[in-house]
Parts: sequence; structure tokens; C-alpha cells
Amino acid sequence: MLIAFEGGEGVGKSTQVARLAEWLVARGHAVETSREPGGTPGAEAIRALFVTGAADRWVPETDALLISAARADHVARRIRPALAAGRLVLVDRFVHSTLAYQGHGKGLDLAALRALHDFATGGLWPDLVLWLDLPVAEGLARARGRKGAADRFESHDRAFHERVRAGFARLAEADRRIVRVDAEGDAATVAARIEAIVAPLLARR
Amino acid sequence: MLIAFEGGEGVGKSTQVARLAEWLVARGHAVETSREPGGTPGAEAIRALFVTGAADRWVPETDALLISAARADHVARRIRPALAAGRLVLVDRFVHSTLAYQGHGKGLDLAALRALHDFATGGLWPDLVLWLDLPVAEGLARARGRKGAADRFESHDRAFHERVRAGFARLAEADRRIVRVDAEGDAATVAARIEAIVAPLLARR
Repeated sequence: MLIAFEGGEGVGKSTQVARLAEWLVARGHAVETSREPGGTPGAEAIRALFVTGAADRWVPETDALLISAARADHVARRIRPALAAGRLVLVDRFVHSTLAYQGHGKGLDLAALRALHDFATGGLWPDLVLWLDLPVAEGLARARGRKGAADRFESHDRAFHERVRAGFARLAEADRRIVRVDAEGDAATVAARIEAIVAPLLARR
Repeated sequence: MLIAFEGGEGVGKSTQVARLAEWLVARGHAVETSREPGGTPGAEAIRALFVTGAADRWVPETDALLISAARADHVARRIRPALAAGRLVLVDRFVHSTLAYQGHGKGLDLAALRALHDFATGGLWPDLVLWLDLPVAEGLARARGRKGAADRFESHDRAFHERVRAGFARLAEADRRIVRVDAEGDAATVAARIEAIVAPLLARR
């Protein structure tokens, strides 16, 4: 089972990946956590090109291709082996970030981005997508509060981040594997919301 | 007009790009020369990931996606502006290297690779492809003679390079914009063969 944590900047994805992993391990599950772009040494090297530099460092097509190049490595060398070994895999960002950021945010064709993902991964889609949702201003304020310099995507303009959020909402409307999680409140409150979504799915397996 | 120089390792592409550029400039043409992967600062940074390391550093899909990411930058920021300014553009490797190396050589689907190229470039295909052809053993011997360490593709096995050469031959059979150039002989001899192909095309423009 592959669970992706998605959402805009500063919504608390990495915190919630760690919390859900802990909750699952306490219930006897074998769990692997990872993030995108990255998750393998090769993909982390590609990540460095992707997340640093000016907002317009790359044309949108290069962004989509770099993220897909990193994902091909991550899926072939880490995610598929972990799934084959029977582990639950939790990943901080996956294909729906590409659809929301490069598709809805930057205007690339969604069908082309889905085809690109299928090429990169041999058609691996998450079983569940937890979309952590916060108002844009609140997420950006949280992201900017936690470290010194904004990364490449945090430094995009406000309108871009609003398109990304609206994009996640449209993706969620069209696909019931994508579940919106209210990301307001402290980490324990959000974690409880996520556990309430995940528990019945595990019970059904 | 976009002219791509293609072929296996050690066939003399970069030498012939420089010679044809000189010949064209002497005839009053505005010329721009470049290479792939690379040709812009961003694409050269991606090149470093692509050409260094062990032969199996990346899965074939990552190779195809990295080269396409670099190409998107190169085409958008250098090749299209040069063509729009009326320059003849000569490039050392382009899409047919991807089809021959990642398609015929590594077994990726050719239609998927063509779609990837169209996504990366908005459908920019060369007007003429000069396929410099040499027996594999001879090309590899030349490539290994000119510097210390083999790069990532030179260090692939002999059977791979034979598949790449056979791939170029099949691509050339199917597309008359791809012209085979016998790359045996010294640089001046090969340059004369190329000039004999290019001269009538320029006369028709």
C-alpha cells in the first residue's frame, strides 16, 4: 500500500508522515517513509537542481521532466522493492504534486503529465492520497517561519500558490482516492484526523 | 534550419560540427553550434549527472527523462531563439541519440520516447540529421584514445554499442531526413562528404 501526503507549502506533510509512520509501527505494520523529489541518492542529486535557484530557473517542462527523472529512480530502486517486501510506504509528495504544481500551477497539460508519470514509474499510482489543506497565506507563513531562505517553490508568487491549492481541490473532486484533510490545528489534532481515515482502510485489507 | 550530427562514440561529431560551421560562416551564413546534453548553463548542470558515474547509475527511464529535461532548457533558451534570429543551428547529438541509445540500445518504447521529445521541445525536430557511421570497434578505439577515462556511455558493453549502431541504421531507413555519412578517413575527407550533402540543401532555400 502506497500512501502519498500532498498539499501546498507549510501544511505539515513531513511532520504527519513521521507521525503516521510511528502510529502504524505501534500497530505492528512494516513501514517505509520517503519524500519527493528524492528518496534515493540519485534522486536527491536531482532534487538539488530542482529546489535551489531562482523561481524561473527552469522552464515548466524541465521542472516536470526533472521531477519525473528523480521519481523513476525512486520508484524503481526504493518504492517498488519496499512494496514487494510487503511494507506500507508513506511518501511526502508524489504524482499529485506534479499535477497540481506543474499542471494547475504552471499550465502544463494534465494528460501529458499523467503520461509522463506512467513512463517514469511503469504506471504506479498511490492507493491513498492525503491532501493536507490550509489557506495559502497560513501555509506560506508557517513555511517561512521554520527556516532562513525560501526554497524555489516557496518563492513563487501568491497567485501561483492559489492555483496549486485550487488544483488539489479539482484533483480531489475527480478521484475518491484523494482525501482532503483539514490541516488547521496542532500536529496531534491533524494526526488524529489522518488516523481516522487510515484505520478503516487497514481494517479492510 | 536545424542540423543534428548523430552517431556512436568516437565517430568525430564534434570535429565535424566545428568544420561545417567554419565552412558555412565562410559562405556568409549566421551559424550557432551547440551540443547535447548541454548547450545552456542549466542543461550542462544536468549533463554532469548524465555522463558521469557507473554505466548502471540510472535506470533507462531516468536517462531518457534527464536528457529530455536538459533538452527542454536547451531548446527553449538557445535553439529556438537562434532559429528565430535566422541562424543555422548545428547540434552535436539531439533526439535521434535518445531514440538510438535509450530506445534501440536500452529497450525503451520508441513511440514513448518520441512523445517525450515532443513534450520537452514543443515538437521541434531537426531538418537534417547527419549520421556519422563507423564500425563500433573503430569508434570506441578512437574515443578511448583521445582521453583518460571512459564516460558513462563509452563504458557500456560492446553489444549495447552494436544495438545503437543498428538502431541508427533503422531510423535512417525510415526517415529520409537522416543521411548516413561514411565516417572512415581523415577529418577533411569526412568534412567534404558532409559539405556535398549540405550544399544542395542550402542552394534550395
